[in-house]
Amino acid sequence: MAGRSADWLAHLLGVQGVGGSNPPAPTSLGQKSIKKAYYMRKIKVGIIGFGTIGAAVAKALMSRRQFLKEKSGLDISVVKICDKELRKKRPVKVPRKVLTGSISRVLYDPEIDIVVELMGGLIPAKDVVLEALRQGKHVVTANKALLSDSGSDIFKLANALDLCVGFEASVGGGIPIIRALKEGFVADRIDLVYGIINGTSNFILSKMAEEKLAFKDALALAQANGYAERDPRLDISGGDSCHKLSILALLGFGIAVKPDEIYTEGITGIEPSDIQFAREYGYAIKLLAIAKRSGRSVELRVHPTLIPHKHLLSDVSGVYNAIFVKGDLVGENLFYGRGAGGEPTSSAVVSDIVSIAKNMSDDYKSADYVTFRKDVDRVKKIEDVSMKYYLRFSAVDKPGVLAKISGILAKYSISIASVNQVQRKASSIVPVIIMTHEARERDMRAALKEIDRLSVIKKKTVRIRVEG
Amino acid sequence: MAGRSADWLAHLLGVQGVGGSNPPAPTSLGQKSIKKAYYMRKIKVGIIGFGTIGAAVAKALMSRRQFLKEKSGLDISVVKICDKELRKKRPVKVPRKVLTGSISRVLYDPEIDIVVELMGGLIPAKDVVLEALRQGKHVVTANKALLSDSGSDIFKLANALDLCVGFEASVGGGIPIIRALKEGFVADRIDLVYGIINGTSNFILSKMAEEKLAFKDALALAQANGYAERDPRLDISGGDSCHKLSILALLGFGIAVKPDEIYTEGITGIEPSDIQFAREYGYAIKLLAIAKRSGRSVELRVHPTLIPHKHLLSDVSGVYNAIFVKGDLVGENLFYGRGAGGEPTSSAVVSDIVSIAKNMSDDYKSADYVTFRKDVDRVKKIEDVSMKYYLRFSAVDKPGVLAKISGILAKYSISIASVNQVQRKASSIVPVIIMTHEARERDMRAALKEIDRLSVIKKKTVRIRVEG
Repeated sequence: MAGRSADWLAHLLGVQGVGGSNPPAPTSLGQKSIKKAYYMRKIKVGIIGFGTIGAAVAKALMSRRQFLKEKSGLDISVVKICDKELRKKRPVKVPRKVLTGSISRVLYDPEIDIVVELMGGLIPAKDVVLEALRQGKHVVTANKALLSDSGSDIFKLANALDLCVGFEASVGGGIPIIRALKEGFVADRIDLVYGIINGTSNFILSKMAEEKLAFKDALALAQANGYAERDPRLDISGGDSCHKLSILALLGFGIAVKPDEIYTEGITGIEPSDIQFAREYGYAIKLLAIAKRSGRSVELRVHPTLIPHKHLLSDVSGVYNAIFVKGDLVGENLFYGRGAGGEPTSSAVVSDIVSIAKNMSDDYKSADYVTFRKDVDRVKKIEDVSMKYYLRFSAVDKPGVLAKISGILAKYSISIASVNQVQRKASSIVPVIIMTHEARERDMRAALKEIDRLSVIKKKTVRIRVEG
Repeated sequence: MAGRSADWLAHLLGVQGVGGSNPPAPTSLGQKSIKKAYYMRKIKVGIIGFGTIGAAVAKALMSRRQFLKEKSGLDISVVKICDKELRKKRPVKVPRKVLTGSISRVLYDPEIDIVVELMGGLIPAKDVVLEALRQGKHVVTANKALLSDSGSDIFKLANALDLCVGFEASVGGGIPIIRALKEGFVADRIDLVYGIINGTSNFILSKMAEEKLAFKDALALAQANGYAERDPRLDISGGDSCHKLSILALLGFGIAVKPDEIYTEGITGIEPSDIQFAREYGYAIKLLAIAKRSGRSVELRVHPTLIPHKHLLSDVSGVYNAIFVKGDLVGENLFYGRGAGGEPTSSAVVSDIVSIAKNMSDDYKSADYVTFRKDVDRVKKIEDVSMKYYLRFSAVDKPGVLAKISGILAKYSISIASVNQVQRKASSIVPVIIMTHEARERDMRAALKEIDRLSVIKKKTVRIRVEG
């Protein structure tokens, strides 16, 4: 510890230097504690994965090393960056000796305190994370697919070894939603978590609504803007939202839920006409991820959803994310921000590094555990969930059709909130829009199966769930 | 450490018991670390101030002691509650031996780890907090007036003694905004923090807008609902927002700003007619607290503000709070929730207790410092700030008035965005509404002084700033 650095840190903290003539107010804790405040901790980080996010993290850590010293009293340096492609041009310049093509050079470097996993995917990311922990290193990851698939294995090993796994970047980019659920609302029994947690889908739905684009054109626009991958399936299928929801459910309810236990429906079936009809009824269509507790069970679902224009979520457009959390003490809270992109995600990754580093010391490792506590006993089957629905029937234009449809709905105890038979066009098939009151998914499925078999119904009925 | 509690904690953490036959994967850290995970830390809390918030905190800690054990691995107990009035009925039942009328019984109780100050005000709260720190105790407080007045003294002493001061509850009730600024956005250079941070004022303005109430009737309604104090001055004068803004500025920019360095204007001068005119122009009127950095200087101001209806803040009504934070990496984030009330505030207080307790141990105290680092050199004088304005002139109804007004505005380089001379009524005085482009406050003040001296102007001109 250099004298200069100690004095300077003392200055930031607003306290006198160790050798100063004017010590702080007398205290029973005495000089021992006072000296501690002066120790500038040196933290060494190894990054695995040097893509968009890896490069943004490296850039943030390297270009603001001094700034981070001032803000946190920590000297954080990047000592290794590992990637398969070492010759590719990156938006950040790093010393050659930092780069390596070998993951082992990071995992087994005794100097490294924190391993940042930014490779994505399950293989070999899972083994990399587990081995980093076994080597006594803390881990920071943005990998939602990995955490939703193998979160229990990872967190349980970390807990057993008194190590931390930071994953603020795994949900909502730079939005500090993980911290909020894990720490901010620790006193709360969580009743509800829901929101827009996939920027790609939200961008596509926003463009379909604002510019009346067809799905495929909106998708192409998202790709052209870098908001969708070349293979966009994980985003538009709802899979990415599903991964994130399982992470939110772990924090909110203490349960490990595998992705396949979460009902997931993407946005590929949304047509511009449904967006227009919904708007006429006062609703926007958004891809929502929903976790709703009732007693000892919880609903977990991802699907396109009609939400009223007066609801704050309906104004969230483009690649923004927004998440509502309702706790029994804190009430309803909303978090809103950019849900993806290198810089916002790097903000979250660095925040994890700093939080972990602050709690590290040579003599004591204070791990911030993720606990498995089961605030709920079971995930409700989607068939047992009750929701309101928007239904669009493609019916032939003749009398008696509505009577048939409503007769079948009634048979399954589905009660109608409103009906709208859209103005006749040249076509002989007309859209009939029905908004229902709350009905059970199981009943709705059975009713639609029966209705779609009617000779007067010409296409599969469109069914979108309604919230709010 | 009882065996049962250790096993049960091991279960929550998902690891094997100490005596189990199946230890976790082999590791270089070995059994020493593994044993640590089993230690259920016992934390003793003393609460000073047993009002609405004190009672809510006591209730939360006592009624969910087991739940908090499961979520945090901490056994937190309330060992003392101090208040002047011990006989008053409270919404929570506490053992008689816990209650005390003497602050010393809390401050000098060697058993107590964390002192929760919920008395409010400066005297004796400041001495209580400083003495608690001198006694080696961590402090949690919801006292914004105290932190804005004496934050430097308090944080500097805490830093010197390696102790924590938790103050999540001081801004935005249960909204985890302090955590977000201090930890979540630690990597970011903060450009902008602004929002609605006084629920009382927002409730009053919302009622004036929605139900066309006069200020004094809306205030009476707020009081009847328990949303305003019997003496509402601190809230409606903007003083409370000013205190909170100084706390946000400390976290956002590392500077200690006294309340009197923040330009503060309350809502007492807002008339229903201005709310109506603003609405016709597409704006809502909200009391905003604004911290805006440009280079090495920062604007800090609290005043009623016109914000466009399309802006998310315009939809924030009633006692809700909402805060935007813009960081250079993370972009724009919004936090929204209940800004006051016993339960939301207790959620924040308990979250601070848990966070502090997690980082405590017998051999090491990891303090989470508030640093004084001066990301900016100075607070801009309000006179030097440029803003857009809404102006309402009370003019006599005769030709040439507008020419006179606009002539003076032009003289001070204030350019007009739009003019609206409201329809003539029976009265001979008509409102003339002018929206300006950006102009310097100094110029605006000089122009209005000159205009208000004109014989055709019959009342002091109403001037409200515009953002967004």
